[in-house]
Amino acid sequence: MFELEESLKPWVKGLKPYVPGEMVEGKLKLASNENGYGASPKVVERVREAASRIHVYPYKDAVVQRKIAQYTGVDAKNIVLGNGSDELITLLITAFRGPVLGQHPSFAEYRLVSQILGQEYVEAPLDAGFSFNVEAYLEKKKEANLFFLCNPNNPTGTKIKRKDLIRVLNEGKPTVVDEAYAEFMNQDSVELLASYDNLIVLRTFAKSFGLAGLRLGYSISSPEIADALKKVKPPFNVNVLAQEAALAALDDIEYMRQSVSEIKKQRQTLFMEIAKKYRPTESWANFILFDVSPKKAGDVYQRLFEEGVIVRCFGEFKGFRGQYLRVTVGTRKQNQKFIEALKKT
Amino acid sequence: MFELEESLKPWVKGLKPYVPGEMVEGKLKLASNENGYGASPKVVERVREAASRIHVYPYKDAVVQRKIAQYTGVDAKNIVLGNGSDELITLLITAFRGPVLGQHPSFAEYRLVSQILGQEYVEAPLDAGFSFNVEAYLEKKKEANLFFLCNPNNPTGTKIKRKDLIRVLNEGKPTVVDEAYAEFMNQDSVELLASYDNLIVLRTFAKSFGLAGLRLGYSISSPEIADALKKVKPPFNVNVLAQEAALAALDDIEYMRQSVSEIKKQRQTLFMEIAKKYRPTESWANFILFDVSPKKAGDVYQRLFEEGVIVRCFGEFKGFRGQYLRVTVGTRKQNQKFIEALKKT
Repeated sequence: MFELEESLKPWVKGLKPYVPGEMVEGKLKLASNENGYGASPKVVERVREAASRIHVYPYKDAVVQRKIAQYTGVDAKNIVLGNGSDELITLLITAFRGPVLGQHPSFAEYRLVSQILGQEYVEAPLDAGFSFNVEAYLEKKKEANLFFLCNPNNPTGTKIKRKDLIRVLNEGKPTVVDEAYAEFMNQDSVELLASYDNLIVLRTFAKSFGLAGLRLGYSISSPEIADALKKVKPPFNVNVLAQEAALAALDDIEYMRQSVSEIKKQRQTLFMEIAKKYRPTESWANFILFDVSPKKAGDVYQRLFEEGVIVRCFGEFKGFRGQYLRVTVGTRKQNQKFIEALKKT
Repeated sequence: MFELEESLKPWVKGLKPYVPGEMVEGKLKLASNENGYGASPKVVERVREAASRIHVYPYKDAVVQRKIAQYTGVDAKNIVLGNGSDELITLLITAFRGPVLGQHPSFAEYRLVSQILGQEYVEAPLDAGFSFNVEAYLEKKKEANLFFLCNPNNPTGTKIKRKDLIRVLNEGKPTVVDEAYAEFMNQDSVELLASYDNLIVLRTFAKSFGLAGLRLGYSISSPEIADALKKVKPPFNVNVLAQEAALAALDDIEYMRQSVSEIKKQRQTLFMEIAKKYRPTESWANFILFDVSPKKAGDVYQRLFEEGVIVRCFGEFKGFRGQYLRVTVGTRKQNQKFIEALKKT
């Protein structure tokens, strides 16, 4: 009769699902790097208008691609849309041969998706202060066929120097630079596409544009890589309202810039407040990683939770000293609530 | 330097992307089996209310699972949500070992996704009238580890007899029954779950509930299979507005039943009208496949297009006689427009 384990691919049994940031109604969630200022009111309005057309399959991919191309300064043929940039990570590891090389610590999805797709995952450590260690990374290069970088890096918030990025690109391997938080950094890698046809940049509407719930990410790459990704892409992966929201968001870039600018100011305040008590890492994203040792991260997390604030608990990073939590930079009011709670830890 | 082809998995180069039904503004599209009556007004209202929360990651999976479980008469632990049932097809072929066995003709995604994931795909022909040929199917059983059936079958609209389905299930192989159109058939396979832990039923909100644009499908299976699928599932695959829409849709099942009942009446009318000129296949779904030979399907398609109606053109099915088009059963008014256009072909 039916034996489930024998029917599954051999590596599936041992997989551990991704654990999303906790969400409890009534508590302030600063765990998933959402944008506390929300989407532009014009985006919300457009979504409401389009709500009567939800019975129709999405059909505006080409229009959205063109609009994103304008925003990022490339051509529509360089853009592929995903159900969040998460899906593009999956499509990349589906299309390209592994093993996959990432940094440690970094975004957990690169490892998880590699494992799900039966691809080996290797990683190179950041240096002790969580800066990118290009030597350590290139030491692993022979073991991998697909490179992942995250810039600024999640969950550390650190950024990669342009010259280090170029050294990695010069290896000629397909190199994904996940720039989910690029708008908070005033810098991106898109211009390098002109010189590096092995570069794939990932971006998203989730963070700076405040559209996390609608799921829309995109890749920017050579048209040839874009075509390869389209071959492995499901046909209706981006929903109609995400398409409408993206179009409206790109009609109101000023709203995004103001919210990003405010969050960057808040980031500075938050950093200084955290530094009064713990050791924050300088961040180029909309979150701050901080070390609470010799306290246990789990204990501080719990205390914050009791005070009504949910942050992300990482605890120890293997091979690193310290006990880490990550907090999203929220609105002024949200951050104030977090700071008050932090004082009680 | 960088050689794209060498970096891709060997089978990716030869893939052909899925071609969705054409969509031209101003033309009546009866090509993708959308529900012309649209979503319930209560669903649209709920989506509008929720539009201000699109900056927050989806977090109602558990609530939606429970509500679907009530609707389908199972437990929440039997349910897995997907970005359309399309995504569940991908998750199944990601988790289970191939080769994959399907019918021919049937929904193109089973083959496409198998190819994308590097799994062999074999298929067994339907009989000459497009009924399920259980003997032909079981003849291929040794070549496959994962079975796909589609009931009613897309694009033929034909259904599988319960006793044939049971014969397939008795083989003890993981068996996916894609019931995207189940509500139009007055019959589903969910009750067989009690006896067959190798059964996975796929359902969707796209068709009967009119939510194609929001992308929400689900699987119903043993809790053990559901757990395996969750291990390969991306964390935020279903967007917030799809979650809200599903909850509202299941609060207004009566709307869905009325729209389905009307479409079934219309299906009967449409069948008789098509039969005056061509050879329709009896359908249990919200579409009708019809043979226009000795005319060429492409010519009839083009003529309909000129009259402002877009249908789906299949042409010849390899191994079968005839020239086939598929038309979605729309609203009374839409169908009338199609019938008028058909007279001019």
